[in-house]
Amino acid sequence: MTTQSEKAEEFRRLHHQPRPLLLPNAWDVASARAFENAGFPAVATSSAALLVSLGYPDGEKIPRREMVGAIARIAQRVAIPLSADVVAGFGRGPRGVVGTVRQVLRAGAVGVNLEDYDPVGERLFPVRGQARKIQAIRELGRSLEVPLVINARTDALWKSPGTPEELLRETIRRCIAYRDAGADCVYPMRLTEAESIQTVVEALQCPVNVMVRKGLPPVAELERLGVKRVSFGPSAAYATMGLLQRISQEVLTEGTFHSLVDGAIGFEELNQLALPRVVPPS
Amino acid sequence: MTTQSEKAEEFRRLHHQPRPLLLPNAWDVASARAFENAGFPAVATSSAALLVSLGYPDGEKIPRREMVGAIARIAQRVAIPLSADVVAGFGRGPRGVVGTVRQVLRAGAVGVNLEDYDPVGERLFPVRGQARKIQAIRELGRSLEVPLVINARTDALWKSPGTPEELLRETIRRCIAYRDAGADCVYPMRLTEAESIQTVVEALQCPVNVMVRKGLPPVAELERLGVKRVSFGPSAAYATMGLLQRISQEVLTEGTFHSLVDGAIGFEELNQLALPRVVPPS
Repeated sequence: MTTQSEKAEEFRRLHHQPRPLLLPNAWDVASARAFENAGFPAVATSSAALLVSLGYPDGEKIPRREMVGAIARIAQRVAIPLSADVVAGFGRGPRGVVGTVRQVLRAGAVGVNLEDYDPVGERLFPVRGQARKIQAIRELGRSLEVPLVINARTDALWKSPGTPEELLRETIRRCIAYRDAGADCVYPMRLTEAESIQTVVEALQCPVNVMVRKGLPPVAELERLGVKRVSFGPSAAYATMGLLQRISQEVLTEGTFHSLVDGAIGFEELNQLALPRVVPPS
Repeated sequence: MTTQSEKAEEFRRLHHQPRPLLLPNAWDVASARAFENAGFPAVATSSAALLVSLGYPDGEKIPRREMVGAIARIAQRVAIPLSADVVAGFGRGPRGVVGTVRQVLRAGAVGVNLEDYDPVGERLFPVRGQARKIQAIRELGRSLEVPLVINARTDALWKSPGTPEELLRETIRRCIAYRDAGADCVYPMRLTEAESIQTVVEALQCPVNVMVRKGLPPVAELERLGVKRVSFGPSAAYATMGLLQRISQEVLTEGTFHSLVDGAIGFEELNQLALPRVVPPS
């Protein structure tokens, strides 16, 4: 039986390997367990995918307890470390954010993603205030003896004004502040281009997370650039919704079912995703 | 603004057209809204897919309120008629089943699927007892003035002993009893072969539902056979889980992301699935 503290440390270690941690983002138990069965060493939630699956747009429109409930459902079924995307923490200051992270840890997560875009004010939070939230979460982890992995996301590359060079500079400034406040990993949203990735990695000297988007270099190249974590973000949800569109199109216009039955799993395999993974004895 | 009663009648009419009603089964708001956007005239839930997404195996292990909550989330976001799969109704007799259907109607559904396999006793319910439940649901619909569409599923083709001919005979006997008890549509699970479909359709003279499985004839052939409703069952969930397997395989072994980004939708399109459909003015 692994304790939550051991699981958090295991998750942290995955950020310090030569090869980047490949981290799929799920939105419900089935998707999380599917990734676990496929052999990923950890899994995260995608806020956009999870919130939309429950009928809420991305951001913090969902009641916090509903989001925590969904995270708890996943945590109760997967054995690998789970990192929870908590958007901007459902609070404007450290107290609210700490309250959210406390609930998410209680739900069983061992890592969090915290972003610096204010979904209410629709602008970036000031960097010092954001750093204080990160410090407060780190402090919470210490007091609970759960050394959670904090992934500090900044949206500076696409939510602030300026030239590309200015945006990259602001991104690095924020990442340094978040790292120094206690973040284990920094995550510049929309960082996909090799040269910029290298610039950030070299400036930070701590694990950097990039998200899968069209144009992201393959894993071998990301490893060469020093990236330590590659998350799917909502892309697996984008892909499955694309598949539902193709299925719908085929059924409605062709009247056939190939895209529904080809490459599909079966009932038993689906049903097993509701249960904890059975690990064969080694 | 369509009333629930009007929506139920609209759903019923869809069972009486020359072409079968093509009915996709969803498991969360995103999948239901994706099907709605694609142009399906109605949507249903798949119990297997919905329950597994919440971390419960198929059957009635999930607390009823959790299942009803998930149905309510979908009903609140889709404008087209929603039919809810209520497994065997979460009750051994009419009273329990009526209580479940009452909640599901209150959640906004206008149709239900009720199956005759007892998930506790692990055998088919006796036909008379099952018919009494259907009568009781019909009576409930009258008392609430919601003329819900009852789809009565029988598992006789694969959950009872006998030769293929005996199983088909038992299936028809059950379907007739359910139709006479007030079902709008009958649904022999695992009925996929053209000759058997034709036999059931001719014996019943009421709408018959078949489910997509490998080997099911295409829609044009089903129309010729007189089928009035073709549901996806859990097949769209099987297909999306198959896609997650392929994505995982590619990322973990090839280190590339093609299956994640090719044919995918984007953020705005995903986010719109959390909101009611915007129908362009005609």
